[in-house]
Amino acid sequence: MSGKFIVFEGVEGAGKTTQIELTAAWLQNQIDGDRAVAITREPGGTKIGRQIRQLLLDDPDECISYRTELLLYAADRAQHVEAKIKPHLELGDIVLCDRFTDSTIAYQGYGRGFDRDEIDRVNQLATGGLQSDLTFWLDLDVTLGLERVLLRGKLDRMERATIDFHQRVRQGYQELANVYPDRIVRLDANRSPAAIQMEIQSKLMVMKGIVTAVPIGET
Amino acid sequence: MSGKFIVFEGVEGAGKTTQIELTAAWLQNQIDGDRAVAITREPGGTKIGRQIRQLLLDDPDECISYRTELLLYAADRAQHVEAKIKPHLELGDIVLCDRFTDSTIAYQGYGRGFDRDEIDRVNQLATGGLQSDLTFWLDLDVTLGLERVLLRGKLDRMERATIDFHQRVRQGYQELANVYPDRIVRLDANRSPAAIQMEIQSKLMVMKGIVTAVPIGET
Repeated sequence: MSGKFIVFEGVEGAGKTTQIELTAAWLQNQIDGDRAVAITREPGGTKIGRQIRQLLLDDPDECISYRTELLLYAADRAQHVEAKIKPHLELGDIVLCDRFTDSTIAYQGYGRGFDRDEIDRVNQLATGGLQSDLTFWLDLDVTLGLERVLLRGKLDRMERATIDFHQRVRQGYQELANVYPDRIVRLDANRSPAAIQMEIQSKLMVMKGIVTAVPIGET
Repeated sequence: MSGKFIVFEGVEGAGKTTQIELTAAWLQNQIDGDRAVAITREPGGTKIGRQIRQLLLDDPDECISYRTELLLYAADRAQHVEAKIKPHLELGDIVLCDRFTDSTIAYQGYGRGFDRDEIDRVNQLATGGLQSDLTFWLDLDVTLGLERVLLRGKLDRMERATIDFHQRVRQGYQELANVYPDRIVRLDANRSPAAIQMEIQSKLMVMKGIVTAVPIGET
């Protein structure tokens, strides 16, 4: 597969959507014309996935068991990998994805307390082994992230979890970043969107197989 | 857990629903009054499960990948075990269930061609190890079963699969019955509903922990 698979991770409110949009806009001018930038997300990156996302996040009675939640995220991911991510990578596209397997480790593993082996088996089943080429972890103070989400309005099921839950999720990301320093880049998300974006661009510019044109500002 | 978990398996049109209803009606008079007979099914035995069932069976574009299908059935099962089957077994009930883990082995394993290890891992994840106390496999000629289903009207996604697929499913059940002769009882489903029901009752009468009263007809 000749494309590149770039994932954005982080707690709620960390600014993933903004950074994905800024990165996509910038990349359009950096890659050659035959390739496309494809933006997608989990859960909900496919037609079936949107229905699974609705089940997962819009559960007013909080009746989904943790095990069911884990398997529904995996079902969403299996469809996403097969129907969208792989076909785009085969076309040579740059896929920018909001959340992937590290979310499952951080949220279901560290947050919900599932055994890491079990999480790894589920991720393997869902992805068939596909990994990101690079993952940007937007590391934001958990309280600040949740305040931002509150300002947006109605909270979904994951967002309603406790501060303590989100602290464990952050700790999960931290440990992943320590174990996989080449794949996961920690970004201090307490800075301005422009400052964060500059760091993302500088990382992508030195990454093989992404930027082919001369970077803007250096022409 | 003091209840009993009885599963009914078989290809489409084998008569599972009829036999479950007859068995439930008969059991009401055989068990002591503190216990209940609980009828349920997979997929769709819970509130979340009904939404998953709709996703699985009502897919007009046939766009669900086999891997997604496998994980959605598992998510349905995880919720079913945790929210319904286990609580009823803990109450001492007799749970009669239309399909369980053997369906996944027969349909996704033998039918779709998934590796048996992978299927076993998914079943383990979904059930936490819960197995049926007894499984009745209603073994019907595949062509006859599909003819019956056709007479009922609109076919769902699994029913639209090829005859060859359903032959492999039947072969899967056969091999399971060979490997687990104590847990799986093969019933010739080409007979009348009454004849099949008589055999079910005779098996349940000798099973420990089910029938406490004197069987009807022998009073």
